[in-house]
Amino acid sequence: MYEILMDLPLFQGVSRDKLSELIEKTPFHFLKYSDKEEIVSLDDNCTHIKFVISGKVLMELPCRKLRVKVSQVLAGPNVIGHDYLFGRKTVYPYSVSSYGECGILQISKPDFINILQSDNIFLYNILNMLSRNSQNNIDELLSLSAGTIFERLAFFVVSLTQHRASDIKIIYKQKDLCSLLGIQRSSFINAMDRLKEMGVIDYSLSEINVIDRQMMLDIVHASE
Amino acid sequence: MYEILMDLPLFQGVSRDKLSELIEKTPFHFLKYSDKEEIVSLDDNCTHIKFVISGKVLMELPCRKLRVKVSQVLAGPNVIGHDYLFGRKTVYPYSVSSYGECGILQISKPDFINILQSDNIFLYNILNMLSRNSQNNIDELLSLSAGTIFERLAFFVVSLTQHRASDIKIIYKQKDLCSLLGIQRSSFINAMDRLKEMGVIDYSLSEINVIDRQMMLDIVHASE
Repeated sequence: MYEILMDLPLFQGVSRDKLSELIEKTPFHFLKYSDKEEIVSLDDNCTHIKFVISGKVLMELPCRKLRVKVSQVLAGPNVIGHDYLFGRKTVYPYSVSSYGECGILQISKPDFINILQSDNIFLYNILNMLSRNSQNNIDELLSLSAGTIFERLAFFVVSLTQHRASDIKIIYKQKDLCSLLGIQRSSFINAMDRLKEMGVIDYSLSEINVIDRQMMLDIVHASE
Repeated sequence: MYEILMDLPLFQGVSRDKLSELIEKTPFHFLKYSDKEEIVSLDDNCTHIKFVISGKVLMELPCRKLRVKVSQVLAGPNVIGHDYLFGRKTVYPYSVSSYGECGILQISKPDFINILQSDNIFLYNILNMLSRNSQNNIDELLSLSAGTIFERLAFFVVSLTQHRASDIKIIYKQKDLCSLLGIQRSSFINAMDRLKEMGVIDYSLSEINVIDRQMMLDIVHASE
């Protein structure tokens, strides 16, 4: 259990003693889910930070205005919703359900604040996590529109999925995805074919399967 | 002085007593600049959080790959670089210089961490500030490409400028700005003319002056 927690970004660099002290003092709630149960509903209020401790979850992020949806599978250890506890919007923009049996650890917002206060390491970790998201902002904004189709799709996928995500899928209507990426249909098909040849994605008329997120990330970094 | 500090987002909700206690304990550095002095250079390491306490500063953000630059004037009280102290990139993506005489308060990263630890209010404030930036991320990504030209330009301006910014300018080569916004030159001119008629912007062949940031923000919110 300690090993799992210490592998979470929030707890990185924390000593085992410190962590065991924390677990004693803080109300950690452990929840068990069987397959396909709802963990977070779209637009739920984010009142707890949640960690995937065992098993896997499916996260689905819909575009509000277009028929495009991004889904990804997150295996434990992983975090859900650390960037929706605070800020202007404290509702989840995605839904999360169990993908097979899974275990979730959740900590309420006030308890989470207490943890951050208890040691600089936690504070550094969360400030790093939030700042990283915040900084991507400008880079993406400046690169998404200006990029090639490869770069646009890569930015889109990398930005909307997590570091350790697997089974990344984009479920789409071609018209809407083209409009989202700001590209023509004919260029879209050409780019998809090229990416398929390169082994980065597989695709059908309504679904793109990202085979290699790391290659997407390489495309993004090469363009920076 | 207290009134100015208490008007900064980081210090909002903090009592006068708490603030005076903080000022006694923490090494606050006050710096004076005369007109047109450099305060932050592009790509400088961000080692301090800086506050504009008196006067104004000019912030200039260049696109790395395109001949487009966004400039804005920030009057005190305002903050510089709170989202570049932590995260993947701790270098400033912009330059800052004095715009007339101005006064800057700066606090080093370790001292800033101590402030955050000293009271929950500071912690809540910074988590809110960072989360707000982080959340814009997804919304923009999903809306920028899918939006009308008005919406794209409005997102661009709103995202890259601060809440209380004035004298917002986009200095551009038309080809590059069109490519950044993913639009055709002809549509660009039409949209600029419409926005000028509406009193939102004024523009020339190389510069857009944003007259009303709030109207830009209204366009963004209307599209959500």
